[in-house]
Amino acid sequence: MKTPRELWDEYRRLLVRIDAVGLALDVSRMDLDGKWLDKMAPLVTRAYDEMDLVERGEKVNSDEDRMVGHYWLRDPARAPSPELSEEIETTVTHVQRFARDVHTGRLKGQKGRPFAHVLVVGIGGSALGPELVADALGGLDGPDKLLAHFIDNTDPDGIARVFRSLEGELDRTMTVVISKSGGTKETRNGMLEAEARYHRAGLNFGEHAVAVTGEGSALDKYAVDTGWITRFPMWDWVGGRTSELSAVGLLPAALQGIDVRGLLDGARAVDEVTRVRTSSPLSNPAMALALAWHFAGEGRGKKDMVILPYKDRLCLMSRYLQQLVMESLGKERDRHGEVVHQGIAVYGNKGSTDQHAYVQQLRDGVNNFFATFIEVLKDVGGQEMSLAVESDVTSGDYLSGFFQGTRRALYEGGRGSITITLGDVSARTVGALIALYERAVGFYAGLVGINAYHQPGVEAGKKAAAIVLDVQHRVLNHLRARVNAEAQTVDQIADALKTPDEIETLFKVLEHLAANPDHGVTRSAGDTPFNARYAAAK
Amino acid sequence: MKTPRELWDEYRRLLVRIDAVGLALDVSRMDLDGKWLDKMAPLVTRAYDEMDLVERGEKVNSDEDRMVGHYWLRDPARAPSPELSEEIETTVTHVQRFARDVHTGRLKGQKGRPFAHVLVVGIGGSALGPELVADALGGLDGPDKLLAHFIDNTDPDGIARVFRSLEGELDRTMTVVISKSGGTKETRNGMLEAEARYHRAGLNFGEHAVAVTGEGSALDKYAVDTGWITRFPMWDWVGGRTSELSAVGLLPAALQGIDVRGLLDGARAVDEVTRVRTSSPLSNPAMALALAWHFAGEGRGKKDMVILPYKDRLCLMSRYLQQLVMESLGKERDRHGEVVHQGIAVYGNKGSTDQHAYVQQLRDGVNNFFATFIEVLKDVGGQEMSLAVESDVTSGDYLSGFFQGTRRALYEGGRGSITITLGDVSARTVGALIALYERAVGFYAGLVGINAYHQPGVEAGKKAAAIVLDVQHRVLNHLRARVNAEAQTVDQIADALKTPDEIETLFKVLEHLAANPDHGVTRSAGDTPFNARYAAAK
Repeated sequence: MKTPRELWDEYRRLLVRIDAVGLALDVSRMDLDGKWLDKMAPLVTRAYDEMDLVERGEKVNSDEDRMVGHYWLRDPARAPSPELSEEIETTVTHVQRFARDVHTGRLKGQKGRPFAHVLVVGIGGSALGPELVADALGGLDGPDKLLAHFIDNTDPDGIARVFRSLEGELDRTMTVVISKSGGTKETRNGMLEAEARYHRAGLNFGEHAVAVTGEGSALDKYAVDTGWITRFPMWDWVGGRTSELSAVGLLPAALQGIDVRGLLDGARAVDEVTRVRTSSPLSNPAMALALAWHFAGEGRGKKDMVILPYKDRLCLMSRYLQQLVMESLGKERDRHGEVVHQGIAVYGNKGSTDQHAYVQQLRDGVNNFFATFIEVLKDVGGQEMSLAVESDVTSGDYLSGFFQGTRRALYEGGRGSITITLGDVSARTVGALIALYERAVGFYAGLVGINAYHQPGVEAGKKAAAIVLDVQHRVLNHLRARVNAEAQTVDQIADALKTPDEIETLFKVLEHLAANPDHGVTRSAGDTPFNARYAAAK
Repeated sequence: MKTPRELWDEYRRLLVRIDAVGLALDVSRMDLDGKWLDKMAPLVTRAYDEMDLVERGEKVNSDEDRMVGHYWLRDPARAPSPELSEEIETTVTHVQRFARDVHTGRLKGQKGRPFAHVLVVGIGGSALGPELVADALGGLDGPDKLLAHFIDNTDPDGIARVFRSLEGELDRTMTVVISKSGGTKETRNGMLEAEARYHRAGLNFGEHAVAVTGEGSALDKYAVDTGWITRFPMWDWVGGRTSELSAVGLLPAALQGIDVRGLLDGARAVDEVTRVRTSSPLSNPAMALALAWHFAGEGRGKKDMVILPYKDRLCLMSRYLQQLVMESLGKERDRHGEVVHQGIAVYGNKGSTDQHAYVQQLRDGVNNFFATFIEVLKDVGGQEMSLAVESDVTSGDYLSGFFQGTRRALYEGGRGSITITLGDVSARTVGALIALYERAVGFYAGLVGINAYHQPGVEAGKKAAAIVLDVQHRVLNHLRARVNAEAQTVDQIADALKTPDEIETLFKVLEHLAANPDHGVTRSAGDTPFNARYAAAK
């Protein structure tokens, strides 16, 4: 362990600042090894080379034969064609003009009342960014222009809960449905549940609905066919988890009244720094992050990434990064097709709250992580003063003290940490954080030689779910065809359906069906849980 | 990998049901090894023996010389003395009577309006349980009697945000301050910030405040001295992370209108099963959980625990368990004083949402986890019907299908999982879940030979934070003493304070002070970030 003086030297040597956005990165507590760093040089070069291909518009997402263009979103001039540049710029202008029309009341709901709520329906890459930004920046400079609400799952109870909170307000609620392919079932279901609620309230859904989707998608067509207010584009060269600075994130944010140009400017300012090959790799903050992750986990994800923002507004940052990092880096194969089982697990909530939850384990327990602190210098907005909770000490001083104390206690316990310092929480700094991590994830993928831009593993679960729903259809048909016959056990039904291998699926489907009134399936208990008998009405 | 038929046999052999609460546990996808299980027998016996000591009221939390009594909370007759039994029962009765008085309007705020909000101020064990229960059970059977709000950090901006949402409603807001020791700074700060807001609104804080705290604590005295409505006890034999079924959790829940007897009954029903030594260790669901964790992580926490409830209402379960598991099991030393660095990392949010975030990595990436699915059979409350989003398919059918699909896809990819099935989300099942995990954590600690009931590692961070605040005091005194002299650099100040070893702390304190107006510290930039000069007014 280094002495305090050595640490201070190391801190000064390694601190990288991006003054244009008031962001600083400190990797001094990762104890990066100088010799190791030298050995990484060829991989660093490879990561930069690949990033150049990304920026130039090569189809680096080779499995899907797609370009990776999220960096162009905040600097359209860098897009590989004038058409693309213009499309990006036009979309931002369109988003801003649309939001202005909503805010001024030029655009109103069917009943003529101005919109007061925006309900975002999306999941994963179409929800986490908007949720992060809404929570981080909502109410920052006075009340939000529209209050943001989210449906990000296919849980009917969760959906009902959101609509209960909007009771009597549906005619003032604009619903934004976000799905690139238009084929994501959770989002499709949320959209249908929303549509049904508007109808029940005597409202035409289309007059309150906006789509963000790929041109020609099922959602796109549905929006045209049923007369939605308008549509915004999602491009195939923007992945869901890097889509926050496309219309996916900008539209909800703009409607809420958030400074979307600030988000874009902050991201661009970071891009301008992180794009550059520096003589020392640690002088590029995104490369420094990627190298620190690599060093901690030996390039194999052996250490989890614990994200600890000391700021309530940034609590969703860990969930956002969980998606960005894990979906990008959690891959079975590298670019050569070798099985590598890569990835880095990410979790965390916020400090100092988490100090009272699991920092006990971080400090004393299994040493399988490195921490990332996010420190915010400004305690409250504007020139507002804080309450002194003790003589000359504010709540914010305590928050700052707890951050420093935990960083120190972890280091003394042999646990590494990274610290990102932000001047404040603002559109610029949130845009900056997003851009910093997008680049770092791209670099890390280059260091370990994987494609960060696809998600082949997600298909397996979807396919397996389709089998389950198929089993449900078949068992419902079977039970309804024998409506006057005796109720059957799961064994009997499996025999009848000739699906002995799907008997467990069948059992779980039957238990779920019988617990709900929707399909008229009833269950009578047997002498064991597996001898219950099932029947269907109708 | 087993065949579907073998899996079904395994599933039926291993499924453990607690019919009294409608809970079932399935560890069939963990591929537990029979021989390994036999070898674990002595450790299983040790875990049961220790649990007997817990139940009998021995001071098994030996470092702190305390009993561990959370199981008595739901079955007071089992407490080791009639006095304790009565105190527990009296407290529950007091909680319920108090909530009734609030709900009927017998007890009102100072201005004579009935209470409409409950604001809970607490952190860690004094916040996560109430937050979980409020979110899981709020609005379940109609509108909440009081709406719940939380302050769980010392972030002045976060605190201000909560009070903005209560604007104009403070006289109808009951603030419940929860701190066992009464010495937790975050909670003390939240309380003072709340008090200041009430005063600013022309209200007497005491007439709207209730304490849950240890008898004779600083908070207890403050509540008496400033005339709070009432106080509820926290006992030294209930740890914060296992306090949800004490007044800590019951009071906020009762005020919100949640069925607290249901919570207690559900927990007791589980306790009655998990207390018992079964002939096969896997027949006790809590022991089965503990053994599955041990098997997955080789008793060293080598696999993270990913918690995936397929139900929006249970989204906070992972955070709750993160605390319960990590703070209990994340220990440096075992009971013999040997350094073991134990623990299990816990993370997760909810399905199917997380399938679109990080299940890519779970399925394909680094194999450093096991999943725990929480399945809920009932889709929506009562006999409500769901919308058919396709012919004969509801949103809830999709949710159920995605759960089964993901469980299967993970297993096919060689990733183990546990499934807990609940009949519904209700006070009984949430109480049951809490009790199941409390017992499993206790058993696991017995298996690996650690004390699950203390948290010695938390002190290091607190001590280090105190040093930081001390540095802040000293630098403020120093700068104010030389108010007319030239501004100084951090090096100069460190020299003057004779704290060369604290120069980095000093630097970070100065940067934080200068970013905020509270202490009158100003900063003028230098030619490097470390050459800035600082001065203070006054």
